[in-house]
Amino acid sequence: MKPIDGGITAPRGFRAAGVACGLKKDGAPDLALIVSDTPASAAGVFTKNIVQGHSLQLSQRNIRSGRARAVVINSGNANACLGPAGDRDALAMAKAVAGHLRCPESEVLTGSTGVIGKKMDMPAIHAGIDAAFADLAGSIEAARRAEQAIMTTDLVPKSCVVEFELEGILVRVAGMAKGSGMIHPDMATMIGVITTDCAVDATTLQHLLRSAVDRTFNRVSVDGDTSVCDMVVALANGAAGNPPIKPDTPEAARLLAAMEKVSTELSRLIARDGEGATKLVEIRVDGARNSEDAYRAVLAVARSPLVKTALFGEDANWGRILTAVGYSGADFDPAQCDIYLGDLKVCENGCAVAFDEAEAKRILQEKDILIRIALGAGSAGDRMWTCDFSYDYVRINGSYRS
Amino acid sequence: MKPIDGGITAPRGFRAAGVACGLKKDGAPDLALIVSDTPASAAGVFTKNIVQGHSLQLSQRNIRSGRARAVVINSGNANACLGPAGDRDALAMAKAVAGHLRCPESEVLTGSTGVIGKKMDMPAIHAGIDAAFADLAGSIEAARRAEQAIMTTDLVPKSCVVEFELEGILVRVAGMAKGSGMIHPDMATMIGVITTDCAVDATTLQHLLRSAVDRTFNRVSVDGDTSVCDMVVALANGAAGNPPIKPDTPEAARLLAAMEKVSTELSRLIARDGEGATKLVEIRVDGARNSEDAYRAVLAVARSPLVKTALFGEDANWGRILTAVGYSGADFDPAQCDIYLGDLKVCENGCAVAFDEAEAKRILQEKDILIRIALGAGSAGDRMWTCDFSYDYVRINGSYRS
Repeated sequence: MKPIDGGITAPRGFRAAGVACGLKKDGAPDLALIVSDTPASAAGVFTKNIVQGHSLQLSQRNIRSGRARAVVINSGNANACLGPAGDRDALAMAKAVAGHLRCPESEVLTGSTGVIGKKMDMPAIHAGIDAAFADLAGSIEAARRAEQAIMTTDLVPKSCVVEFELEGILVRVAGMAKGSGMIHPDMATMIGVITTDCAVDATTLQHLLRSAVDRTFNRVSVDGDTSVCDMVVALANGAAGNPPIKPDTPEAARLLAAMEKVSTELSRLIARDGEGATKLVEIRVDGARNSEDAYRAVLAVARSPLVKTALFGEDANWGRILTAVGYSGADFDPAQCDIYLGDLKVCENGCAVAFDEAEAKRILQEKDILIRIALGAGSAGDRMWTCDFSYDYVRINGSYRS
Repeated sequence: MKPIDGGITAPRGFRAAGVACGLKKDGAPDLALIVSDTPASAAGVFTKNIVQGHSLQLSQRNIRSGRARAVVINSGNANACLGPAGDRDALAMAKAVAGHLRCPESEVLTGSTGVIGKKMDMPAIHAGIDAAFADLAGSIEAARRAEQAIMTTDLVPKSCVVEFELEGILVRVAGMAKGSGMIHPDMATMIGVITTDCAVDATTLQHLLRSAVDRTFNRVSVDGDTSVCDMVVALANGAAGNPPIKPDTPEAARLLAAMEKVSTELSRLIARDGEGATKLVEIRVDGARNSEDAYRAVLAVARSPLVKTALFGEDANWGRILTAVGYSGADFDPAQCDIYLGDLKVCENGCAVAFDEAEAKRILQEKDILIRIALGAGSAGDRMWTCDFSYDYVRINGSYRS
């Protein structure tokens, strides 16, 4: 498996577009369309929030068929908390796309991201869908425009492509995603789209997507909040021509590895581009009693505002890291716990240890920071990506709606 | 019951002092001493963090006797994560105080708050204890100095006194506390001291303190983090001369009400003085299916960085409030949920409702904000105090250790 240049259109038989239809006040692209030339196997993972956006709810229903031709996503409006009107607007989006493709509307997946509680501007959406079909292309440039059209407070578009061989046939997996606030595990976390030309049935694809998401997108925390519009959908159109993948085979494992690679890269991009973030922080826990404890420990550290502000301030405040593990619910003996910043041990057996403050400062000044916590209670581990908490997080979120 | 002027020394038979012994770099007061002239019934509630400061651990052991003469608390150093040296230093603090009082060292409660992992400056502590005994007084001024000496990032000292009659005898309950970061429920939350001249045995006092703390200090969230040094201790010396209070009597209920009133006021002061806070925010949930769900809902909203930054920005972003309730784990139907800012309904049946934006802005510009969430799923309720999330929270916590 190797990473290659390209975007969501890199797998054969996929085209994309990204247009500005006027939902965003600043005229930036706000409607993305991804089309598979043939019906694709479809899978999806959706927010666990009880409150769910109308476009997301429609996708959840439509994914049940296991088959999709297109994904249409608007930014600038979450299409959430609007009652029956929101459901109607989501359906109208799907119908408009299905009309262009002459496919059942159930084969269109819809996503919306942006402000909650604002009625969708449907004339703009319809005009945007028409413009997107006029622009639809398999080029890298078209993929980039689609990536940009799903951005909200993201500063950079996010995509990743890998290719690998299956029984002599070249297969590609591509993904694009948007962050960058309201990002937290267990809720599918954000909007992501994965395309592949691999031949695989919908049930197997769903199983692989769930595995990949649990280990990647569900291991990103920007602020502990989770949105009502978060979803990751995967479309596999079989255009590579490989023999369809069977579950629990080496081939399925290779496809999973590729999907996980793409999802990992997108997850890291999301954390690095967290609202106001200046650093990508990887929290790694090992020596936990079991995997639940490892997850609890890594989660508490990744979501602690005190840890995250200290990272912004480049302050080697390991006491806050140990404190967060202490209240995480993980069972461990502080007297067995070591903490490292990069390779620098800053806490040994739960106690202060003399360390080189200049070296600690140098490590914390990097854009990529690794925090390792060795609990000494067992052999389970976990890892999570997060970012620091800066003035800009407050600025961005103090005035998002206005 | 009525509030009166005064501080921790208002109940008869209590004296206090606050001195600067050099633990804080800026020369501010950093050692507080509270002494009961006679042995008092003692109770305490302590952090649930697995990692616990050495001074706190000593208090936890000493409180078991149910009897205390004094509380000594230093700020500027948490005396935590220091191994056996930390235990020795906590014991030395208690011994020094016991020496002055000629009482068993087990009758001294110790608390420390500040940076984790820094060896205590014991010569400074000893000098501070001597100076505190020289200054010990029952005046309001002495109480104020004690309040100041336990402050860390607090901007204002925090105290509250009430008095009420028990069988014709005037009884007083006083409290002082410090915040203002690492404040979160279920961990006793901060350092607080409550004194009363009421006669009550230690077991009853412990029961009343636990009840009061659960409904007050455990309903404050500043940042979702919880410290290794959090504790609330209560001393009741009986100097009022009332017949000792029996459990489950009207008299016990009246003492509880007074303790809860003092704790409520201190809790609100802590939230209002949350690090970087510009507003005190009360989150109130009703209509929950049961009390667990009410707590989950109120907790999720109170700790959401997205809600808290929107409050700082005075942005009526009710979608974030509903989103937080949605991922809280509370069971409810969004279509039955209403949200109010003050008396202004901003969300009805889970949907956007037209509201006066100017009126919303006016409400959010206040220093005291009430957010009400009616879940429509049952009859349980809860409430919690929090604050907004500002640039200053980031500034304060980006450079705390240095």
